Amino acid sequence: MRQRIIAEFKRIQNDICAALEECDGKAKFHEDRYTDRGEALTRVMRDGDVFEKGGVNFSASSGTLPPAILDQLNVKGSKYFACGVSIVIHPQNPWVPIIHMNIRYFETDQGESWFGGGIDLTPHYVDDGEAKYFHEAMKATCDKWKPEAFSDFKKQADDYFYIPHRNETRGIGGIFFDHLIPGSHGSFDELFDFVVDVGDSFAPTYVYLVNRKKEKSFSDENKQWQLLRRGRYVEFNLVYDRGTKFGLQTGWRAESMLMSLPKHVSWEYKFAPNEGSDEAKTLTLLTKGVDWADS
Amino acid sequence: MRQRIIAEFKRIQNDICAALEECDGKAKFHEDRYTDRGEALTRVMRDGDVFEKGGVNFSASSGTLPPAILDQLNVKGSKYFACGVSIVIHPQNPWVPIIHMNIRYFETDQGESWFGGGIDLTPHYVDDGEAKYFHEAMKATCDKWKPEAFSDFKKQADDYFYIPHRNETRGIGGIFFDHLIPGSHGSFDELFDFVVDVGDSFAPTYVYLVNRKKEKSFSDENKQWQLLRRGRYVEFNLVYDRGTKFGLQTGWRAESMLMSLPKHVSWEYKFAPNEGSDEAKTLTLLTKGVDWADS
Repeated sequence: MRQRIIAEFKRIQNDICAALEECDGKAKFHEDRYTDRGEALTRVMRDGDVFEKGGVNFSASSGTLPPAILDQLNVKGSKYFACGVSIVIHPQNPWVPIIHMNIRYFETDQGESWFGGGIDLTPHYVDDGEAKYFHEAMKATCDKWKPEAFSDFKKQADDYFYIPHRNETRGIGGIFFDHLIPGSHGSFDELFDFVVDVGDSFAPTYVYLVNRKKEKSFSDENKQWQLLRRGRYVEFNLVYDRGTKFGLQTGWRAESMLMSLPKHVSWEYKFAPNEGSDEAKTLTLLTKGVDWADS
Repeated sequence: MRQRIIAEFKRIQNDICAALEECDGKAKFHEDRYTDRGEALTRVMRDGDVFEKGGVNFSASSGTLPPAILDQLNVKGSKYFACGVSIVIHPQNPWVPIIHMNIRYFETDQGESWFGGGIDLTPHYVDDGEAKYFHEAMKATCDKWKPEAFSDFKKQADDYFYIPHRNETRGIGGIFFDHLIPGSHGSFDELFDFVVDVGDSFAPTYVYLVNRKKEKSFSDENKQWQLLRRGRYVEFNLVYDRGTKFGLQTGWRAESMLMSLPKHVSWEYKFAPNEGSDEAKTLTLLTKGVDWADS
Protein backbone atom coordinates (compact mmCIF):
# COMPACT_ATOMS: atom_id res chain seq x y z
CA MET A 1 0.00 0.00 0.00
CA ARG A 2 2.74 2.43 0.98
CA GLN A 3 4.74 1.58 -2.11
CA ARG A 4 1.69 2.12 -4.27
CA ILE A 5 1.11 5.58 -2.79
CA ILE A 6 4.77 6.53 -3.05
CA ALA A 7 4.95 5.44 -6.69
CA GLU A 8 1.77 7.26 -7.67
CA PHE A 9 2.62 10.48 -5.81
CA LYS A 10 6.09 10.52 -7.43
CA ARG A 11 4.48 9.99 -10.82
CA ILE A 12 2.20 12.97 -10.12
CA GLN A 13 5.19 15.09 -9.10
CA ASN A 14 6.98 14.17 -12.32
CA ASP A 15 3.99 14.86 -14.53
CA ILE A 16 3.36 18.23 -12.93
CA CYS A 17 7.00 19.32 -13.15
CA ALA A 18 7.09 18.34 -16.83
CA ALA A 19 3.90 20.28 -17.56
CA LEU A 20 5.12 23.40 -15.73
CA GLU A 21 8.50 23.30 -17.45
CA GLU A 22 6.82 23.04 -20.81
CA CYS A 23 4.52 25.95 -19.94
CA ASP A 24 7.45 28.08 -18.78
CA GLY A 25 9.63 27.27 -21.78
CA LYS A 26 12.86 28.38 -20.08
CA ALA A 27 13.32 27.42 -16.43
CA LYS A 28 13.80 23.86 -15.20
CA PHE A 29 13.15 22.39 -11.78
CA HIS A 30 16.21 21.78 -9.64
CA GLU A 31 15.90 18.78 -7.33
CA ASP A 32 17.31 18.31 -3.84
CA ARG A 33 16.96 14.82 -2.46
CA TYR A 34 16.97 14.18 1.29
CA THR A 35 16.88 10.77 2.90
CA ASP A 36 17.10 11.61 6.59
CA ARG A 37 13.55 10.54 7.58
CA GLY A 38 12.49 8.67 4.47
CA GLU A 39 12.74 10.33 1.11
CA ALA A 40 12.06 13.92 0.21
CA LEU A 41 12.40 15.35 -3.28
CA THR A 42 12.31 19.13 -3.08
CA ARG A 43 11.98 20.58 -6.57
CA VAL A 44 12.21 24.31 -7.08
CA MET A 45 12.01 26.35 -10.28
CA ARG A 46 13.30 29.92 -10.29
CA ASP A 47 13.36 32.98 -12.51
CA GLY A 48 11.49 31.42 -15.38
CA ASP A 49 9.86 33.33 -18.22
CA VAL A 50 6.45 32.51 -16.78
CA PHE A 51 7.10 31.38 -13.20
CA GLU A 52 9.11 33.54 -10.81
CA LYS A 53 9.32 30.83 -8.17
CA GLY A 54 7.66 27.49 -7.82
CA GLY A 55 8.07 24.45 -5.63
CA VAL A 56 6.76 20.96 -6.32
CA ASN A 57 7.74 18.82 -3.35
CA PHE A 58 7.34 15.12 -2.75
CA SER A 59 8.02 13.54 0.60
CA ALA A 60 7.56 10.17 2.23
CA SER A 61 8.61 9.86 5.83
CA SER A 62 8.21 7.56 8.78
CA GLY A 63 9.29 7.60 12.38
CA THR A 64 8.02 8.24 15.88
CA LEU A 65 5.76 11.16 16.75
CA PRO A 66 6.60 13.17 19.88
CA PRO A 67 3.81 13.30 22.54
CA ALA A 68 2.88 16.92 21.78
CA ILE A 69 2.25 16.02 18.15
CA LEU A 70 0.24 12.91 19.08
CA ASP A 71 -2.05 15.19 21.07
CA GLN A 72 -2.27 17.70 18.29
CA LEU A 73 -3.12 15.06 15.69
CA ASN A 74 -5.36 13.23 18.15
CA VAL A 75 -3.91 9.82 17.25
CA LYS A 76 -2.94 6.83 19.39
CA GLY A 77 -0.19 5.28 17.30
CA SER A 78 3.14 6.99 17.68
CA LYS A 79 4.82 5.23 14.73
CA TYR A 80 3.72 6.98 11.59
CA PHE A 81 4.06 6.98 7.85
CA ALA A 82 3.27 10.09 5.83
CA CYS A 83 3.48 10.79 2.13
CA GLY A 84 2.51 13.85 0.16
CA VAL A 85 2.97 16.22 -2.72
CA SER A 86 2.91 19.98 -2.02
CA ILE A 87 2.97 22.73 -4.58
CA VAL A 88 3.03 26.52 -4.58
CA ILE A 89 3.62 28.45 -7.80
CA HIS A 90 4.23 32.20 -7.99
CA PRO A 91 3.99 33.49 -11.57
CA GLN A 92 5.86 36.50 -12.98
CA ASN A 93 2.82 38.11 -14.56
CA PRO A 94 0.40 39.74 -12.09
CA TRP A 95 -2.57 38.67 -14.24
CA VAL A 96 -1.66 35.02 -13.72
CA PRO A 97 -2.90 33.55 -10.41
CA ILE A 98 -0.82 31.93 -7.68
CA ILE A 99 -1.79 28.30 -7.11
CA HIS A 100 -1.37 25.83 -4.28
CA MET A 101 -1.96 22.10 -4.25
CA ASN A 102 -1.43 19.44 -1.65
CA ILE A 103 -2.26 15.75 -1.54
CA ARG A 104 -1.27 13.65 1.43
CA TYR A 105 -1.69 10.33 3.17
CA PHE A 106 -1.01 9.63 6.85
CA GLU A 107 -1.13 6.44 8.88
CA THR A 108 -0.04 5.18 12.29
CA ASP A 109 0.82 1.75 13.64
CA GLN A 110 -2.55 1.72 15.44
CA GLY A 111 -4.49 1.45 12.20
CA GLU A 112 -5.36 5.15 12.02
CA SER A 113 -5.12 6.52 8.50
CA TRP A 114 -6.50 9.23 6.28
CA PHE A 115 -6.07 11.20 3.09
CA GLY A 116 -6.13 14.98 2.83
CA GLY A 117 -5.43 17.67 0.31
CA GLY A 118 -6.87 20.30 -1.95
CA ILE A 119 -6.19 22.91 -4.60
CA ASP A 120 -6.84 26.61 -4.20
CA LEU A 121 -6.29 29.57 -6.48
CA THR A 122 -5.04 33.02 -5.45
CA PRO A 123 -5.46 35.49 -8.29
CA HIS A 124 -3.83 38.89 -7.78
CA TYR A 125 -6.79 40.12 -9.81
CA VAL A 126 -10.00 38.15 -9.53
CA ASP A 127 -11.35 37.35 -12.99
CA ASP A 128 -14.87 35.93 -13.06
CA GLY A 129 -14.28 33.69 -16.07
CA GLU A 130 -11.09 32.27 -14.60
CA ALA A 131 -12.74 31.70 -11.21
CA LYS A 132 -15.67 29.92 -12.85
CA TYR A 133 -13.40 27.73 -14.97
CA PHE A 134 -11.28 26.81 -11.94
CA HIS A 135 -14.18 25.97 -9.65
CA GLU A 136 -15.91 23.96 -12.38
CA ALA A 137 -12.71 21.97 -12.92
CA MET A 138 -12.55 21.25 -9.18
CA LYS A 139 -16.22 20.30 -9.18
CA ALA A 140 -15.71 17.91 -12.11
CA THR A 141 -12.88 16.19 -10.20
CA CYS A 142 -15.03 15.86 -7.08
CA ASP A 143 -18.10 14.73 -9.04
CA LYS A 144 -16.15 11.77 -10.42
CA TRP A 145 -15.92 10.52 -6.83
CA LYS A 146 -19.22 11.68 -5.42
CA PRO A 147 -21.58 14.51 -6.26
CA GLU A 148 -21.92 15.90 -2.71
CA ALA A 149 -18.16 16.24 -2.18
CA PHE A 150 -17.60 19.51 -4.03
CA SER A 151 -19.85 21.80 -1.98
CA ASP A 152 -18.42 20.35 1.23
CA PHE A 153 -14.79 20.70 0.14
CA LYS A 154 -15.43 24.11 -1.39
CA LYS A 155 -16.79 25.34 1.94
CA GLN A 156 -13.80 23.86 3.75
CA ALA A 157 -11.47 25.74 1.40
CA ASP A 158 -13.34 29.01 2.05
CA ASP A 159 -13.02 28.44 5.80
CA TYR A 160 -9.41 27.29 5.74
CA PHE A 161 -7.87 29.83 3.35
CA TYR A 162 -9.05 32.79 5.35
CA ILE A 163 -6.99 35.57 6.95
CA PRO A 164 -8.92 36.73 10.04
CA HIS A 165 -6.76 39.78 10.74
CA ARG A 166 -7.42 41.05 7.21
CA ASN A 167 -11.00 39.79 7.05
CA GLU A 168 -10.14 38.47 3.59
CA THR A 169 -9.93 35.05 2.03
CA ARG A 170 -6.45 34.31 0.68
CA GLY A 171 -7.82 33.96 -2.82
CA ILE A 172 -10.92 32.51 -4.44
CA GLY A 173 -10.66 29.15 -2.65
CA GLY A 174 -11.15 25.86 -4.42
CA ILE A 175 -11.28 22.56 -2.55
CA PHE A 176 -9.83 21.49 0.79
CA PHE A 177 -10.35 18.18 2.57
CA ASP A 178 -8.80 16.32 5.46
CA HIS A 179 -9.36 13.09 7.39
CA LEU A 180 -10.85 11.14 4.53
CA ILE A 181 -10.66 7.82 6.36
CA PRO A 182 -10.52 4.55 4.43
CA GLY A 183 -13.44 2.41 5.61
CA SER A 184 -15.43 5.43 6.84
CA HIS A 185 -15.57 7.80 3.90
CA GLY A 186 -15.09 5.25 1.17
CA SER A 187 -12.84 2.28 0.44
CA PHE A 188 -9.10 2.81 0.37
CA ASP A 189 -9.18 2.50 -3.42
CA GLU A 190 -11.98 5.02 -3.82
CA LEU A 191 -10.23 7.61 -1.66
CA PHE A 192 -6.86 6.96 -3.24
CA ASP A 193 -8.33 7.29 -6.73
CA PHE A 194 -9.97 10.58 -5.74
CA VAL A 195 -6.74 12.02 -4.34
CA VAL A 196 -4.83 10.92 -7.44
CA ASP A 197 -7.51 12.58 -9.58
CA VAL A 198 -7.01 15.80 -7.63
CA GLY A 199 -3.28 15.56 -8.30
CA ASP A 200 -3.85 14.85 -11.97
CA SER A 201 -6.30 17.72 -12.35
CA PHE A 202 -3.69 20.23 -11.23
CA ALA A 203 -1.52 20.60 -14.30
CA PRO A 204 -4.16 20.78 -17.05
CA THR A 205 -6.29 23.20 -15.02
CA TYR A 206 -3.48 25.54 -14.03
CA VAL A 207 -1.60 25.44 -17.34
CA TYR A 208 -4.81 26.37 -19.15
CA LEU A 209 -5.28 29.38 -16.86
CA VAL A 210 -1.63 30.41 -17.12
CA ASN A 211 -1.63 30.24 -20.91
CA ARG A 212 -4.68 32.54 -21.09
CA LYS A 213 -2.77 35.35 -19.38
CA LYS A 214 0.96 34.77 -19.42
CA GLU A 215 1.52 37.16 -22.33
CA LYS A 216 -0.88 39.85 -21.13
CA SER A 217 0.89 43.18 -20.68
CA PHE A 218 0.91 44.82 -17.28
CA SER A 219 1.85 48.14 -15.69
CA ASP A 220 4.08 49.03 -12.73
CA GLU A 221 0.88 49.47 -10.71
CA ASN A 222 -0.19 45.92 -11.56
CA LYS A 223 3.22 44.65 -10.45
CA GLN A 224 3.11 46.62 -7.21
CA TRP A 225 -0.34 45.19 -6.45
CA GLN A 226 1.00 41.68 -7.10
CA LEU A 227 3.78 42.23 -4.55
CA LEU A 228 1.27 43.46 -1.96
CA ARG A 229 -1.04 40.48 -2.56
CA ARG A 230 1.98 38.21 -2.12
CA GLY A 231 2.41 39.86 1.27
CA ARG A 232 -1.01 38.53 2.23
CA TYR A 233 0.06 35.11 0.98
CA VAL A 234 3.07 35.25 3.30
CA GLU A 235 0.87 36.35 6.20
CA PHE A 236 -1.46 33.40 5.68
CA ASN A 237 1.33 30.86 5.32
CA LEU A 238 3.37 32.00 8.32
CA VAL A 239 0.52 32.84 10.69
CA TYR A 240 -2.24 30.34 9.89
CA ASP A 241 -1.24 27.51 7.60
CA ARG A 242 -1.41 24.28 9.60
CA GLY A 243 1.10 22.44 7.45
CA THR A 244 3.68 25.20 7.83
CA LYS A 245 3.12 25.49 11.59
CA PHE A 246 3.32 21.72 11.98
CA GLY A 247 6.47 21.57 9.92
CA LEU A 248 8.16 24.38 11.83
CA GLN A 249 7.25 22.76 15.17
CA THR A 250 8.52 19.36 14.17
CA GLY A 251 11.77 20.71 12.81
CA TRP A 252 11.09 19.82 9.20
CA ARG A 253 13.53 21.44 6.72
CA ALA A 254 12.63 25.12 6.69
CA GLU A 255 13.93 25.63 3.15
CA SER A 256 11.72 22.87 1.74
CA MET A 257 8.63 24.18 3.51
CA LEU A 258 9.25 27.84 2.89
CA MET A 259 9.68 27.37 -0.84
CA SER A 260 6.04 28.57 -0.68
CA LEU A 261 7.21 32.13 0.01
CA PRO A 262 7.46 34.36 -3.08
CA LYS A 263 10.76 35.78 -4.32
CA HIS A 264 9.70 39.43 -4.22
CA VAL A 265 7.15 40.69 -1.73
CA SER A 266 6.06 44.07 -0.48
CA TRP A 267 4.14 45.58 2.42
CA GLU A 268 2.74 49.11 2.36
CA TYR A 269 1.08 50.68 5.37
CA LYS A 270 -2.66 51.03 4.70
CA PHE A 271 -2.48 50.66 0.94
CA ALA A 272 -5.93 51.40 -0.46
CA PRO A 273 -6.79 50.88 -4.14
CA ASN A 274 -8.66 53.56 -6.05
CA GLU A 275 -12.42 53.28 -6.05
CA GLY A 276 -13.74 51.40 -9.05
CA SER A 277 -10.30 49.96 -9.93
CA ASP A 278 -9.56 46.31 -10.72
CA GLU A 279 -7.72 46.14 -7.40
CA ALA A 280 -10.77 47.41 -5.49
CA LYS A 281 -13.02 44.93 -7.31
CA THR A 282 -10.69 42.10 -6.31
CA LEU A 283 -10.96 43.05 -2.64
CA THR A 284 -14.76 42.80 -2.77
CA LEU A 285 -14.45 39.23 -4.07
CA LEU A 286 -12.01 37.93 -1.45
CA THR A 287 -14.83 36.65 0.68
CA LYS A 288 -16.33 33.31 1.64
CA GLY A 289 -19.33 31.75 -0.03
CA VAL A 290 -19.08 32.98 -3.63
CA ASP A 291 -20.62 30.27 -5.83
CA TRP A 292 -18.23 30.52 -8.76
CA ALA A 293 -19.08 27.15 -10.24
CA ASP A 294 -22.79 27.98 -10.48
CA SER A 295 -22.55 31.58 -11.60
CA MET B 1 -0.37 57.10 37.59
CA ARG B 2 -1.97 56.21 34.25
CA GLN B 3 -1.92 59.82 33.14
CA ARG B 4 1.74 60.09 34.09
CA ILE B 5 2.63 57.02 32.01
CA ILE B 6 0.54 58.20 29.06
CA ALA B 7 2.11 61.67 29.13
CA GLU B 8 5.67 60.35 29.37
CA PHE B 9 5.22 57.66 26.71
CA LYS B 10 3.73 60.25 24.34
CA ARG B 11 6.67 62.55 25.05
CA ILE B 12 9.04 59.69 24.18
CA GLN B 13 7.13 59.03 20.94
CA ASN B 14 7.38 62.71 20.01
CA ASP B 15 11.08 62.95 20.78
CA ILE B 16 11.90 59.83 18.81
CA CYS B 17 9.86 60.91 15.78
CA ALA B 18 11.58 64.31 15.80
CA ALA B 19 15.03 62.71 16.01
CA LEU B 20 14.31 60.26 13.19
CA GLU B 21 12.86 62.98 10.95
CA GLU B 22 15.94 65.09 11.51
CA CYS B 23 18.18 62.12 10.74
CA ASP B 24 16.26 61.32 7.56
CA GLY B 25 16.15 64.92 6.35
CA LYS B 26 13.30 64.30 3.92
CA ALA B 27 10.46 62.08 5.09
CA LYS B 28 8.00 62.98 7.82
CA PHE B 29 5.89 60.75 10.01
CA HIS B 30 2.23 60.55 9.10
CA GLU B 31 -0.08 60.02 12.09
CA ASP B 32 -3.30 58.06 12.29
CA ARG B 33 -5.23 58.53 15.51
CA TYR B 34 -7.68 55.88 16.71
CA THR B 35 -9.90 56.21 19.75
CA ASP B 36 -11.89 52.98 19.64
CA ARG B 37 -10.36 51.35 22.75
CA GLY B 38 -8.53 54.28 24.28
CA GLU B 39 -6.08 56.22 22.19
CA ALA B 40 -3.67 54.94 19.59
CA LEU B 41 -1.30 57.14 17.60
CA THR B 42 0.11 55.12 14.71
CA ARG B 43 2.95 57.05 13.10
CA VAL B 44 4.54 55.74 9.94
CA MET B 45 7.35 57.22 7.84
CA ARG B 46 7.84 56.03 4.27
CA ASP B 47 10.27 56.33 1.40
CA GLY B 48 12.70 58.61 3.20
CA ASP B 49 16.26 59.30 2.13
CA VAL B 50 17.52 57.23 5.05
CA PHE B 51 14.52 55.20 6.21
CA GLU B 52 12.54 53.08 3.81
CA LYS B 53 9.79 52.38 6.31
CA GLY B 54 9.45 53.07 9.98
CA GLY B 55 6.70 52.94 12.54
CA VAL B 56 6.68 54.65 15.92
CA ASN B 57 3.39 53.71 17.58
CA PHE B 58 1.88 54.87 20.84
CA SER B 59 -1.18 53.23 22.32
CA ALA B 60 -3.12 53.39 25.55
CA SER B 61 -6.11 51.11 25.86
CA SER B 62 -8.43 49.75 28.47
CA GLY B 63 -11.30 47.31 28.47
CA THR B 64 -12.21 43.75 29.35
CA LEU B 65 -9.99 40.79 28.56
CA PRO B 66 -11.63 37.68 27.07
CA PRO B 67 -11.17 34.44 29.10
CA ALA B 68 -8.64 32.93 26.68
CA ILE B 69 -6.41 35.98 27.05
CA LEU B 70 -6.75 35.97 30.86
CA ASP B 71 -5.41 32.40 30.80
CA GLN B 72 -2.63 33.31 28.43
CA LEU B 73 -1.52 36.30 30.53
CA ASN B 74 -2.10 34.37 33.73
CA VAL B 75 -3.94 37.26 35.39
CA LYS B 76 -7.05 37.40 37.58
CA GLY B 77 -8.37 40.85 36.78
CA SER B 78 -10.30 41.03 33.54
CA LYS B 79 -10.45 44.84 33.41
CA TYR B 80 -7.13 46.05 32.08
CA PHE B 81 -5.18 49.14 31.18
CA ALA B 82 -2.21 48.93 28.82
CA CYS B 83 0.07 51.60 27.46
CA GLY B 84 3.12 51.30 25.24
CA VAL B 85 5.40 52.61 22.55
CA SER B 86 6.49 50.24 19.76
CA ILE B 87 9.03 50.96 17.08
CA VAL B 88 10.45 49.17 14.06
CA ILE B 89 12.68 51.00 11.59
CA HIS B 90 13.82 49.60 8.24
CA PRO B 91 16.58 51.71 6.69
CA GLN B 92 17.26 52.09 2.96
CA ASN B 93 20.99 51.39 3.18
CA PRO B 94 21.88 47.73 3.78
CA TRP B 95 24.83 48.78 5.95
CA VAL B 96 22.47 50.46 8.40
CA PRO B 97 20.83 48.09 10.91
CA ILE B 98 17.12 47.52 11.48
CA ILE B 99 16.07 48.42 15.01
CA HIS B 100 13.15 47.57 17.25
CA MET B 101 12.09 49.09 20.55
CA ASN B 102 9.16 48.53 22.81
CA ILE B 103 8.24 49.88 26.22
CA ARG B 104 4.98 48.94 27.85
CA TYR B 105 2.95 48.98 31.03
CA PHE B 106 0.05 46.68 31.89
CA GLU B 107 -2.31 46.55 34.84
CA THR B 108 -5.57 44.91 35.84
CA ASP B 109 -8.33 45.82 38.29
CA GLN B 110 -7.00 43.10 40.62
CA GLY B 111 -3.83 45.04 41.36
CA GLU B 112 -1.67 43.06 38.93
CA SER B 113 0.77 45.29 37.05
CA TRP B 114 4.11 45.20 35.32
CA PHE B 115 6.47 46.94 32.91
CA GLY B 116 8.12 45.31 29.95
CA GLY B 117 10.16 46.29 26.93
CA GLY B 118 13.52 46.23 25.26
CA ILE B 119 15.61 47.33 22.31
CA ASP B 120 17.29 45.00 19.86
CA LEU B 121 19.39 45.58 16.78
CA THR B 122 19.24 43.61 13.53
CA PRO B 123 22.16 44.50 11.28
CA HIS B 124 22.01 43.10 7.75
CA TYR B 125 25.80 42.97 8.14
CA VAL B 126 27.14 42.43 11.63
CA ASP B 127 29.83 45.02 12.39
CA ASP B 128 31.83 44.39 15.56
CA GLY B 129 32.28 48.06 16.42
CA GLU B 130 28.62 48.82 15.94
CA ALA B 131 27.57 45.80 17.99
CA LYS B 132 29.91 46.79 20.80
CA TYR B 133 28.70 50.39 20.79
CA PHE B 134 25.06 49.28 20.85
CA HIS B 135 25.46 46.75 23.65
CA GLU B 136 27.49 49.19 25.72
CA ALA B 137 24.77 51.81 25.32
CA MET B 138 22.18 49.28 26.48
CA LYS B 139 24.43 48.31 29.38
CA ALA B 140 24.83 51.95 30.42
CA THR B 141 21.05 52.38 30.48
CA CYS B 142 20.61 49.24 32.58
CA ASP B 143 23.51 50.14 34.91
CA LYS B 144 21.78 53.40 35.83
CA TRP B 145 19.01 51.27 37.36
CA LYS B 146 20.98 48.30 38.65
CA PRO B 147 24.24 46.67 37.64
CA GLU B 148 22.96 43.11 37.42
CA ALA B 149 20.09 43.99 35.05
CA PHE B 150 22.06 44.09 31.80
CA SER B 151 23.35 40.52 31.71
CA ASP B 152 19.89 39.22 32.62
CA PHE B 153 18.08 41.33 30.00
CA LYS B 154 20.77 40.65 27.40
CA LYS B 155 20.25 36.92 27.85
CA GLN B 156 16.48 37.35 27.61
CA ALA B 157 16.94 39.21 24.32
CA ASP B 158 19.16 36.40 22.97
CA ASP B 159 16.53 33.85 23.94
CA TYR B 160 13.55 35.85 22.72
CA PHE B 161 14.84 37.11 19.36
CA TYR B 162 15.64 33.65 18.10
CA ILE B 163 14.32 31.87 15.00
CA PRO B 164 14.32 28.12 15.82
CA HIS B 165 13.57 26.94 12.28
CA ARG B 166 16.61 28.85 11.01
CA ASN B 167 18.76 28.20 14.05
CA GLU B 168 19.66 31.89 13.94
CA THR B 169 19.10 34.85 16.22
CA ARG B 170 17.13 37.61 14.50
CA GLY B 171 20.04 40.01 14.94
CA ILE B 172 22.62 40.76 17.57
CA GLY B 173 20.08 41.07 20.39
CA GLY B 174 20.18 43.85 22.94
CA ILE B 175 17.90 43.91 25.97
CA PHE B 176 14.48 42.37 26.59
CA PHE B 177 12.52 42.35 29.84
CA ASP B 178 8.99 41.55 30.95
CA HIS B 179 7.00 41.35 34.16
CA LEU B 180 8.99 43.97 36.03
CA ILE B 181 6.48 44.19 38.87
CA PRO B 182 6.24 47.34 41.00
CA GLY B 183 6.78 46.29 44.61
CA SER B 184 8.64 43.10 43.65
CA HIS B 185 11.40 44.22 41.30
CA GLY B 186 11.67 47.79 42.53
CA SER B 187 9.36 50.64 43.39
CA PHE B 188 6.94 51.91 40.77
CA ASP B 189 9.10 55.01 40.35
CA GLU B 190 12.31 53.03 39.94
CA LEU B 191 10.80 50.78 37.29
CA PHE B 192 9.07 53.64 35.51
CA ASP B 193 12.31 55.65 35.45
CA PHE B 194 14.16 52.67 34.01
CA VAL B 195 11.62 52.13 31.26
CA VAL B 196 11.65 55.84 30.42
CA ASP B 197 15.46 55.68 30.27
CA VAL B 198 15.20 52.81 27.82
CA GLY B 199 12.86 54.92 25.71
CA ASP B 200 15.16 57.91 25.90
CA SER B 201 18.24 55.88 25.01
CA PHE B 202 16.68 54.80 21.71
CA ALA B 203 17.08 57.90 19.56
CA PRO B 204 20.65 58.95 20.44
CA THR B 205 21.92 55.37 20.18
CA TYR B 206 20.25 54.56 16.88
CA VAL B 207 20.82 57.93 15.22
CA TYR B 208 24.53 57.67 16.03
CA LEU B 209 24.68 54.24 14.37
CA VAL B 210 22.65 55.37 11.36
CA ASN B 211 24.80 58.43 10.78
CA ARG B 212 27.97 56.30 10.72
CA LYS B 213 26.69 54.34 7.72
CA LYS B 214 23.85 56.10 5.97
CA GLU B 215 26.08 57.47 3.20
CA LYS B 216 28.12 54.31 2.72
CA SER B 217 27.88 53.04 -0.85
CA PHE B 218 26.52 49.58 -1.51
CA SER B 219 26.20 47.12 -4.36
CA ASP B 220 23.25 45.22 -5.81
CA GLU B 221 24.51 42.18 -3.90
CA ASN B 222 24.39 44.15 -0.63
CA LYS B 223 20.82 45.20 -1.42
CA GLN B 224 19.76 41.65 -2.30
CA TRP B 225 21.22 40.40 0.99
CA GLN B 226 19.29 43.09 2.86
CA LEU B 227 16.02 41.90 1.27
CA LEU B 228 16.76 38.31 2.26
CA ARG B 229 17.58 39.31 5.86
CA ARG B 230 14.32 41.23 5.95
CA GLY B 231 12.65 37.93 5.04
CA ARG B 232 14.01 36.47 8.28
CA TYR B 233 12.65 39.52 10.11
CA VAL B 234 9.20 38.79 8.68
CA GLU B 235 9.50 35.12 9.64
CA PHE B 236 10.31 36.05 13.23
CA ASN B 237 7.55 38.63 13.52
CA LEU B 238 4.79 36.52 12.00
CA VAL B 239 5.74 33.15 13.47
CA TYR B 240 7.21 33.90 16.90
CA ASP B 241 6.74 37.46 18.10
CA ARG B 242 4.41 37.36 21.12
CA GLY B 243 3.19 40.92 20.68
CA THR B 244 2.20 40.29 17.07
CA LYS B 245 0.51 36.97 17.89
CA PHE B 246 -1.33 38.54 20.82
CA GLY B 247 -2.41 41.47 18.69
CA LEU B 248 -3.64 39.26 15.84
CA GLN B 249 -5.58 37.06 18.29
CA THR B 250 -7.23 39.97 20.04
CA GLY B 251 -8.22 41.66 16.80
CA TRP B 252 -5.95 44.67 17.22
CA ARG B 253 -5.62 46.77 14.05
CA ALA B 254 -3.52 44.69 11.67
CA GLU B 255 -2.17 47.74 9.83
CA SER B 256 -0.84 49.30 13.04
CA MET B 257 0.84 46.10 14.16
CA LEU B 258 2.16 45.05 10.79
CA MET B 259 3.87 48.39 10.20
CA SER B 260 6.83 46.28 11.43
CA LEU B 261 6.98 44.49 8.07
CA PRO B 262 9.47 45.95 5.58
CA LYS B 263 8.41 47.53 2.31
CA HIS B 264 10.53 45.29 0.06
CA VAL B 265 11.38 41.73 1.04
CA SER B 266 12.73 38.71 -0.74
CA TRP B 267 12.97 34.96 -0.27
CA GLU B 268 15.37 32.77 -2.22
CA TYR B 269 15.39 29.00 -1.92
CA LYS B 270 18.56 27.89 -0.13
CA PHE B 271 20.52 31.11 -0.65
CA ALA B 272 24.07 30.52 0.55
CA PRO B 273 26.63 33.34 0.74
CA ASN B 274 30.13 32.82 -0.64
CA GLU B 275 32.70 31.51 1.80
CA GLY B 276 34.65 34.26 3.48
CA SER B 277 32.17 36.97 2.43
CA ASP B 278 30.69 39.64 4.71
CA GLU B 279 27.38 37.81 4.41
CA ALA B 280 28.93 34.53 5.55
CA LYS B 281 30.62 36.28 8.48
CA THR B 282 27.27 37.74 9.52
CA LEU B 283 25.69 34.28 9.62
CA THR B 284 28.37 33.04 12.03
CA LEU B 285 27.52 35.90 14.41
CA LEU B 286 23.74 35.39 14.50
CA THR B 287 24.00 33.24 17.57
CA LYS B 288 23.20 33.50 21.26
CA GLY B 289 25.68 34.41 23.95
CA VAL B 290 28.11 36.74 22.15
CA ASP B 291 29.44 39.18 24.77
CA TRP B 292 29.56 42.29 22.63
CA ALA B 293 29.72 44.75 25.52
CA ASP B 294 32.80 43.08 27.01
CA SER B 295 34.69 42.31 23.83
